[in-house]
Amino acid sequence: MENSALLTDLYQLTMAQAYFREQHMGQATFSLFIRSYPPNRGYFVSAGLEDVLDYLESFSFNASELDYLASQQLFSDDFLHYLADLRLSGTVWAIPEGRIFFKDEPIIEITAPIIEAQIVETFVINQIHLQTLIATKAARCVHAAGGRSVVDFALRRTHGTDAGMKVARASYLAGCAGTSNVLAGSRYAIPIVGTMAHSFVMSFDSEIDAFRAYAASFPNNAILLIDTYDTLAGARNAVIVANEMAHRGNKLIGVRIDSGDLAAHARAVRKIFDDADMRDVKIIGSGGLDEFDLEQFASANIPFDSYGVGTKMGTSGDAPWSDISYKLVEYQNRSLLKLSAGKVSWPGKKQVFRARGGNGSLERDVIGLRDETLAGESLLTQVMRDGKACAAHPTLMESRKVFEAEFAALPQSVKAIRNPDRYPVEFSAKLTALRSEISEKIARG
Amino acid sequence: MENSALLTDLYQLTMAQAYFREQHMGQATFSLFIRSYPPNRGYFVSAGLEDVLDYLESFSFNASELDYLASQQLFSDDFLHYLADLRLSGTVWAIPEGRIFFKDEPIIEITAPIIEAQIVETFVINQIHLQTLIATKAARCVHAAGGRSVVDFALRRTHGTDAGMKVARASYLAGCAGTSNVLAGSRYAIPIVGTMAHSFVMSFDSEIDAFRAYAASFPNNAILLIDTYDTLAGARNAVIVANEMAHRGNKLIGVRIDSGDLAAHARAVRKIFDDADMRDVKIIGSGGLDEFDLEQFASANIPFDSYGVGTKMGTSGDAPWSDISYKLVEYQNRSLLKLSAGKVSWPGKKQVFRARGGNGSLERDVIGLRDETLAGESLLTQVMRDGKACAAHPTLMESRKVFEAEFAALPQSVKAIRNPDRYPVEFSAKLTALRSEISEKIARG
Repeated sequence: MENSALLTDLYQLTMAQAYFREQHMGQATFSLFIRSYPPNRGYFVSAGLEDVLDYLESFSFNASELDYLASQQLFSDDFLHYLADLRLSGTVWAIPEGRIFFKDEPIIEITAPIIEAQIVETFVINQIHLQTLIATKAARCVHAAGGRSVVDFALRRTHGTDAGMKVARASYLAGCAGTSNVLAGSRYAIPIVGTMAHSFVMSFDSEIDAFRAYAASFPNNAILLIDTYDTLAGARNAVIVANEMAHRGNKLIGVRIDSGDLAAHARAVRKIFDDADMRDVKIIGSGGLDEFDLEQFASANIPFDSYGVGTKMGTSGDAPWSDISYKLVEYQNRSLLKLSAGKVSWPGKKQVFRARGGNGSLERDVIGLRDETLAGESLLTQVMRDGKACAAHPTLMESRKVFEAEFAALPQSVKAIRNPDRYPVEFSAKLTALRSEISEKIARG
Repeated sequence: MENSALLTDLYQLTMAQAYFREQHMGQATFSLFIRSYPPNRGYFVSAGLEDVLDYLESFSFNASELDYLASQQLFSDDFLHYLADLRLSGTVWAIPEGRIFFKDEPIIEITAPIIEAQIVETFVINQIHLQTLIATKAARCVHAAGGRSVVDFALRRTHGTDAGMKVARASYLAGCAGTSNVLAGSRYAIPIVGTMAHSFVMSFDSEIDAFRAYAASFPNNAILLIDTYDTLAGARNAVIVANEMAHRGNKLIGVRIDSGDLAAHARAVRKIFDDADMRDVKIIGSGGLDEFDLEQFASANIPFDSYGVGTKMGTSGDAPWSDISYKLVEYQNRSLLKLSAGKVSWPGKKQVFRARGGNGSLERDVIGLRDETLAGESLLTQVMRDGKACAAHPTLMESRKVFEAEFAALPQSVKAIRNPDRYPVEFSAKLTALRSEISEKIARG
């Protein structure tokens, strides 16, 4: 991951110089939130906070970065000296990773001298945008699969290498069973999963030679790809090899189908294995799948045992971006909002209060001011004080359990993968009054 | 960028072990191509080769990577020793960056012992997929803008940090005028561009105070954002500040409009500046723009001078992935293809022969075998021999010029941003005959 302090938009630095020159350096609070739901979404999954906190803790400019800035003929020497010593000192409140959240709810709020809180905007949005987008997409896929496991196969078509890592992480957080990405397995302790490619089969003189070679190397871990030439003939070759493996005391794990009419092939292949009395050989489906396919397979009881899901999950193909925004909500204790058409914001430091029903299921959120005391659980917690994380990061496995518990409590109708119900989110009376008051003040000029 | 050898799909390594165990280590050729056009696309822009060549040259496993693999209980000691010494020795032919190419045309062909050519698949696809996708999207935006300049503002919503860098690079290659991404400016020598954010304006007591503060820091580089509260009032404030700057011997560069009815606001703001006799103050448009908006503005003569284009370009929002594929086409001098439904491939090492019309405009491509001699320019050149790049990489500026010249020669109807004409691409008689021959051989079994 690129974590250079230069990985930012130029305007963060030009604004910083203007703040510095004016000594306009008061405490500012910025709030990160998603303004609207992408198509067919009714919730989001929080992800990416760990990367943000690590970035904030280690933020600084090195000499060669400052040399580059000096070369641009935009920045004064005194400002560049200021940047050389700049470290972040802020306070951060955030929704922990794995929690469900909804549009308009603050995901992260950063309070710091305005230069500091401003300059980190680009990176904070970049990471939270991607990781919540993918965690949300993955949650949809896992939910649609109806109990069958889903594995991340996306690395080859994610947008670059950082996305490849974050897709593996965010999709595991949101319930995927593993990833094909070996580096992500290594870095995040995610189970890694792999089968074989068509090229492997093609490079041997015959399909069955390829299957035998693979079985010899992986006597108890083999999954054979059976659709290189003819899926049903491939399944019959796999039966032969599975029998040979059984004679040696080994066991074929499963087969993968990656093309054609997946549902019809899965049924026919299941029958071939069942007829050979190999009921526990698994069938893995892959090839351009998304949550809409998985839901269809689940509702038709197609005998897939698990899925490899790649491109469409790893790019959030039907909704590759969300309308995420990082807004100044307070400066020197003055609550602020902007009135740009279609982008009116909510002022002040906030908190989300989450109420549950008798059975523990999520019932209603209220977005209020941070210093309000309202019924329900407070969703944002303080995660950074004076530029230092307040606690060790939860492990990915811990955040995955947080997700699992919270997702189980989310109403089914909100989890629907098409046209979900809107979860009830209200604004507190105090926040609503504050917004009206400021809007009127601006209108009066 | 993550360039660990572990940044790959697990199956690349399991297949490698099976190849190794069988001593099935013959020369293989893999071919990278895009199978179909995403919606409204009729051409692609080649990008990403430099990263691929750097990766191939530096490929190796380090000790901690091998320790992780050993911990997986999948790999034999002799195979892990083999991996420890593995370096790449292959030959690479490729279409240079900046060239236009079409579906089915090989972008890169790698010939090497099969383990080597196979193991790099994931990274090669990952980088070429992203960079061609974005270069193509950027070319569409620049073309649609009709001569107005387009700047990359995407970093905050690209999919992670590597994508942020590659979007800046690929969009500059394809004609963008600059980027907001400071690190990309530094690494790739791309002009960097920045204005100000709404938060800057909001943090001051009034909009005009904010404008004055910014003008004081950037007496000859200021672009003022005028839509925080009311766009036309903002323009009138900008006129006041521009007059103050002129009195000091400075000059306001321009204003930016980021919300609302951009076309109507641009006209009204233009009139405000023209009435103030400030005809050279530029108007920059931004806010969710893509090539469809830019074409509409161009055809209606909306008085924008340039655009900041972010999310939709940086995620290729209408087409966030392409059907790119890396296929084994030859093994030990045996030409290969696969017959998977909907994914039938073309066998053999290939070349693309590009014919031009009398006026130099692109006329027709023929995809043939590499050893054929057909009319026209050969598009693929040898870029790597025995694992070493054949020449220094062209600079980004050189590749940008390659793009500019080739794009100018592409027929207008193929460049249309909606329903473009299909550029004529044929397969040579020899290649067609080879494919039939192999298909029949497979059908005979």
